[in-house]
Amino acid sequence: MSAITTKKIRLGFIGGGSRSMIGVAHKRAAQISGEFVLSGGVFSAEYAESLRYAQVEELDPAYIYSDVAQLISGELAKPESQRIELVSVLTPNALHFGAVSELLKAGFHIVCEKPITTTLEEAESLAQLMASSDQAFAVAHTYTGYPMVRQLRQMIQAGVIGQIQKIDAQYYQGWVNEVLHDEERRQSVWRLKPALAGPSCCFGDIGVHAFNLVEFTTGLRIQQVLAETDTFNSGNSLDVDGTALFKTECGVRGLIRASQIATGEENNLSIAIYGRLGALKWSHENPSQLIFLPSNAPRQILTPGHPYLAELATASSTLPPGHPEGLFDALGNIYFAVAQKISGRQYDPAAFPGIDEGVRGISFIDAVLRSNNQMQQWVKLK
Amino acid sequence: MSAITTKKIRLGFIGGGSRSMIGVAHKRAAQISGEFVLSGGVFSAEYAESLRYAQVEELDPAYIYSDVAQLISGELAKPESQRIELVSVLTPNALHFGAVSELLKAGFHIVCEKPITTTLEEAESLAQLMASSDQAFAVAHTYTGYPMVRQLRQMIQAGVIGQIQKIDAQYYQGWVNEVLHDEERRQSVWRLKPALAGPSCCFGDIGVHAFNLVEFTTGLRIQQVLAETDTFNSGNSLDVDGTALFKTECGVRGLIRASQIATGEENNLSIAIYGRLGALKWSHENPSQLIFLPSNAPRQILTPGHPYLAELATASSTLPPGHPEGLFDALGNIYFAVAQKISGRQYDPAAFPGIDEGVRGISFIDAVLRSNNQMQQWVKLK
Amino acid sequence: MSAITTKKIRLGFIGGGSRSMIGVAHKRAAQISGEFVLSGGVFSAEYAESLRYAQVEELDPAYIYSDVAQLISGELAKPESQRIELVSVLTPNALHFGAVSELLKAGFHIVCEKPITTTLEEAESLAQLMASSDQAFAVAHTYTGYPMVRQLRQMIQAGVIGQIQKIDAQYYQGWVNEVLHDEERRQSVWRLKPALAGPSCCFGDIGVHAFNLVEFTTGLRIQQVLAETDTFNSGNSLDVDGTALFKTECGVRGLIRASQIATGEENNLSIAIYGRLGALKWSHENPSQLIFLPSNAPRQILTPGHPYLAELATASSTLPPGHPEGLFDALGNIYFAVAQKISGRQYDPAAFPGIDEGVRGISFIDAVLRSNNQMQQWVKLK
Amino acid sequence: MSAITTKKIRLGFIGGGSRSMIGVAHKRAAQISGEFVLSGGVFSAEYAESLRYAQVEELDPAYIYSDVAQLISGELAKPESQRIELVSVLTPNALHFGAVSELLKAGFHIVCEKPITTTLEEAESLAQLMASSDQAFAVAHTYTGYPMVRQLRQMIQAGVIGQIQKIDAQYYQGWVNEVLHDEERRQSVWRLKPALAGPSCCFGDIGVHAFNLVEFTTGLRIQQVLAETDTFNSGNSLDVDGTALFKTECGVRGLIRASQIATGEENNLSIAIYGRLGALKWSHENPSQLIFLPSNAPRQILTPGHPYLAELATASSTLPPGHPEGLFDALGNIYFAVAQKISGRQYDPAAFPGIDEGVRGISFIDAVLRSNNQMQQWVKLK
Repeated sequence: MSAITTKKIRLGFIGGGSRSMIGVAHKRAAQISGEFVLSGGVFSAEYAESLRYAQVEELDPAYIYSDVAQLISGELAKPESQRIELVSVLTPNALHFGAVSELLKAGFHIVCEKPITTTLEEAESLAQLMASSDQAFAVAHTYTGYPMVRQLRQMIQAGVIGQIQKIDAQYYQGWVNEVLHDEERRQSVWRLKPALAGPSCCFGDIGVHAFNLVEFTTGLRIQQVLAETDTFNSGNSLDVDGTALFKTECGVRGLIRASQIATGEENNLSIAIYGRLGALKWSHENPSQLIFLPSNAPRQILTPGHPYLAELATASSTLPPGHPEGLFDALGNIYFAVAQKISGRQYDPAAFPGIDEGVRGISFIDAVLRSNNQMQQWVKLK
Repeated sequence: MSAITTKKIRLGFIGGGSRSMIGVAHKRAAQISGEFVLSGGVFSAEYAESLRYAQVEELDPAYIYSDVAQLISGELAKPESQRIELVSVLTPNALHFGAVSELLKAGFHIVCEKPITTTLEEAESLAQLMASSDQAFAVAHTYTGYPMVRQLRQMIQAGVIGQIQKIDAQYYQGWVNEVLHDEERRQSVWRLKPALAGPSCCFGDIGVHAFNLVEFTTGLRIQQVLAETDTFNSGNSLDVDGTALFKTECGVRGLIRASQIATGEENNLSIAIYGRLGALKWSHENPSQLIFLPSNAPRQILTPGHPYLAELATASSTLPPGHPEGLFDALGNIYFAVAQKISGRQYDPAAFPGIDEGVRGISFIDAVLRSNNQMQQWVKLK
Repeated sequence: MSAITTKKIRLGFIGGGSRSMIGVAHKRAAQISGEFVLSGGVFSAEYAESLRYAQVEELDPAYIYSDVAQLISGELAKPESQRIELVSVLTPNALHFGAVSELLKAGFHIVCEKPITTTLEEAESLAQLMASSDQAFAVAHTYTGYPMVRQLRQMIQAGVIGQIQKIDAQYYQGWVNEVLHDEERRQSVWRLKPALAGPSCCFGDIGVHAFNLVEFTTGLRIQQVLAETDTFNSGNSLDVDGTALFKTECGVRGLIRASQIATGEENNLSIAIYGRLGALKWSHENPSQLIFLPSNAPRQILTPGHPYLAELATASSTLPPGHPEGLFDALGNIYFAVAQKISGRQYDPAAFPGIDEGVRGISFIDAVLRSNNQMQQWVKLK
Repeated sequence: MSAITTKKIRLGFIGGGSRSMIGVAHKRAAQISGEFVLSGGVFSAEYAESLRYAQVEELDPAYIYSDVAQLISGELAKPESQRIELVSVLTPNALHFGAVSELLKAGFHIVCEKPITTTLEEAESLAQLMASSDQAFAVAHTYTGYPMVRQLRQMIQAGVIGQIQKIDAQYYQGWVNEVLHDEERRQSVWRLKPALAGPSCCFGDIGVHAFNLVEFTTGLRIQQVLAETDTFNSGNSLDVDGTALFKTECGVRGLIRASQIATGEENNLSIAIYGRLGALKWSHENPSQLIFLPSNAPRQILTPGHPYLAELATASSTLPPGHPEGLFDALGNIYFAVAQKISGRQYDPAAFPGIDEGVRGISFIDAVLRSNNQMQQWVKLK
């Protein structure tokens, strides 16, 4: 297999090899964007496994590495036109910081799974690296890639529901339930292990998405939280459930509810934002619908592909109304915007969540854990 | 108009006259039950207005009174067979206690709107009156009259979802929003006035329904709460929004969310109960559906009128499947059970909420307010 | 029990005794309207059974009769102020005509279950009786009593969806399925017996409701149909399923689909009306929602109790938004309008379906059967 | 750009260039399958435009051709390992036959948009070519690629709803409405022009999908139809609306409703299949839900990703439950199965619709038009 010259951007993965769901999602999203070609990376902690995966994917072994350091030196040794430019970091949480910080220093663009680090110090250290850089850095808050979430944000900005009065966000899943009650399976899930997941399971994995959705859609910054979390089972050390009351800088109240023991729930991320003039509601259970509740008029259901949508929402779907697109397509929208940034094209700053959103997420997780540790007192986000 | 002899139970109202929505609901519910005939009462603070309403309703003026004391003496003076037996107390909250305590002492059966009193002391005083009595006392927790809410309770009792892990109840409305932002209208709504409503608006009016729904369906008793409430607008003194985290006696966690400034929400009372083996969800937005989410099987939607329902749920609807019944019919189910109690027939203790449920509600409101006043600390229900 | 003088209108039933679902519905609806008092009638073919039912309902035996002729002579013998004025005819179809024609001639007002007769000749004969009369005659097309069905009609009249292009109405139920496959139960259901039901089961029982809904909401008159019906099972002689394509007088096309072997369907009456500028959809599965699909704007969901509704829709519900009313309340709206007519008050002509609607229904059933018998040719409604 | 050796299958397009929605869908679906690489083709009737598109897509110009004949000779001249193997024919309908027949004769595998031809003779001619061939031939009945449609089929095969009693399929769209009422736009839409679309617009474009869905899910073959179609507007010559009653070989009745003037409908393809023991319902408005209505038990909602699904449905989604996939992913499932066939791997015959399904579709369209022309008589499918 000889090298090809492509105007597509070469993409590498850290993690995301064959058995990884998240790897499949990122690979397909990058393809969907039409802007990237997956060239190689460190798919697995074991080099042999990475090579095997590369073979399946028909990748040039010259792009396959045993670790991040090797990838950096190997790629920098190549002519610029043949180099991996964007690296997607898809490992368990605890490995994000080391990989990302080295890759950033070496000049690579980054897509990083959330949470971007396991401590606030690490997150701020990444922010400092980014402060003087114009590299692309995106956090995989995939839900912000849905057209109707983007429309929600735009309608709030446009004042459609007036001043915000109350925010209620939920992320309920049930899949941890069966694991939690089965000691053997509990040992096999990295998200329940502090060494790999960091200090939080539920808020690190899903609560942080709900937090991001609140700040992304409203443009408000959460200033303080009062949170209770629960490990539920004595044999388990990380949170699998919890609620965080919050106040924003301008005094708007709200709450974020997260659970991984909500048996029977599939992936129920929902948000409701109540304003002076109306409300907007979105749920991942039907991501193509945005519900608008005006104070004094019939409810409306907005859907993708219509001329009545704002610009970014319009650009975020491909097919005519009634032809559903899904989670891969939403993440594809984020990859597309990252490509716009990398290639110096204009892009909407709302089109991918960046380092600030990454740090905010860690700051939120940190505050939630502190509040819970302090007997559910109000604490400020650092 | 001459007196008639009826085997139906004579019913009187305190409040609930012509301009009262709640009066319409109770009148229709009593009719629907087929067990009562509305005979008279004190429909209004003004006697002339009560008489006028009586005329419209074609009631015998001999059953119309200017106040509760008059009603008591007037009725007791009649032969037993012609006496009002059940009195529905439908006034603003602050007037409940006086009326109910006098009526109870005089031997009347009672249906009382919630919250039954404005202080816990008063509520306990009513409980004491009831302790040695076999009078009927029902609180108008109408939602417990829906067949699918009764089915939910039964399925939890039957162990269908196993041990309960998490409870999330919500009662969101938007109607206070417009009132709150209009100083003039704010003055006209008794629910916002401490002298009539008591110490709470949002939790007294709707949060207490969500609380009752939690205890009714799960059979668990909430032991402590951590609550934040909000008056929202500086010109307003009572809560119009709030969240209460709770723990039950056996350690189950959950939360109750209530808001009257959830603009655009109509009457969105919902509950989700997550157990070891599955979940049950019900929402007043579609009260004829009970959603069952088994851990490892497809979701199910249960509806009224089917042979697969439990006994009380079956008895709680009249028509075949697919013929919707509504709120009047739900309240009618409660009146029917009150009639069973009064007339000495067998009845399911779940078929109407009684004095214990009434006191529990006040105890909850009291704890919510205490917790909020103590900077959102955990407090125990008294 | 002595006679009372009441401004309420005395109501009598033909049929509708204790074991009758339809009797329960009419009794409760009449109560809900606040305008009627059920006084007596011929509840059952057996006088003793009628008396027994009267006792349960605490009715004066002076109002209980063994047949229609007796009722007529008995009531006419009473002073006008104590006479039954409205008679609801709730028997199996084949008995409607005899009862209704005698009652009309004797001056009674009528509510008649659909189909009003079993032949078109009979229906036209009733129409002739009504032609020179100002008695009230209502057909129990209960679904026209729902606020959102009334709103639908008004929006079409107001031109909200422009010129109508296409109409699709459905009434699917599953309850006959189990009966049909069980020879014994098949013998016990009068709707499947020509002698009682007349020439049609499915179109006579439910197809005619869908037909009425089409004409009621659109104001168009169906001129011709092409219909196929099916008895399904060789041991069964009446239709239990069928489809009728239709054209209206002004050339609008549409179809009416009806089935009683749609296993698992509860009572799924739905209509979609597509116009030049938008569509309106309503389904009995959620009767409180009217869906408006504008051609170039987001979908809207209209619900009862809001200021944005038209006059008749507003008058057709009692409670604030989000407090569901049901089928009893819808039929109650029809009884209320009948009372307005009887007592000489102003009423909206759309507020109850009358003799013309009754005849139209029979004309439709007749045409459906003729078309099917003629190998599914187009036939005109007579 | 030098040639690469790949185990992926080279894919070519006839049509589907830059401005083509259908081209985007097929390109993305082929990518998603992970089995194909788009190499070239005849993207446009104009060679220059094809070259321009190739440049955007970074395709080797050696794979870009000015017409089908050139493509065939050019590709056959290449070594086998570098040849396009699968050609997707994405042109307007009238061009399918010429392209497909030549390509089949030359040994290429085919994915063809529906309807596969504009006459039944042509379709049968393609079937003859395929009769003695083991080339792959797939029709783009995309909806059969949805996991829940495949699950529906499997459940019927497994007898879950027993013997089928009634089938009702609908495909309603509104997009043609605005075009039809605007003479200028009407001239610009090829689907409304007989020379390009063939003899049918509505049934050729969407009715045929509903037909395929009926035969795919039930395994029954429709034998005769009675159909009415409508061109609606005097300035328009092809059908834009219609209904086809049908009977299957074994006598099951049903109907297919199709409309492109159903204003406000997005892409509402739905099917309901009623059996002796229950029903199954699926709608493209929520393609991740399969509704099962057992005769005597609560409704169930089946969703992708669960262990309770059958094998092919399980293989047809990638992500865990609650992570929606869409239309691209459904078409990707079809491409994946085509690749299995091409590369000699085992595949489920239900995993892509083949030549038989293609011919059946044309046969249905032909019968619908004949029936309508014969004044809506019953006609047999040829």
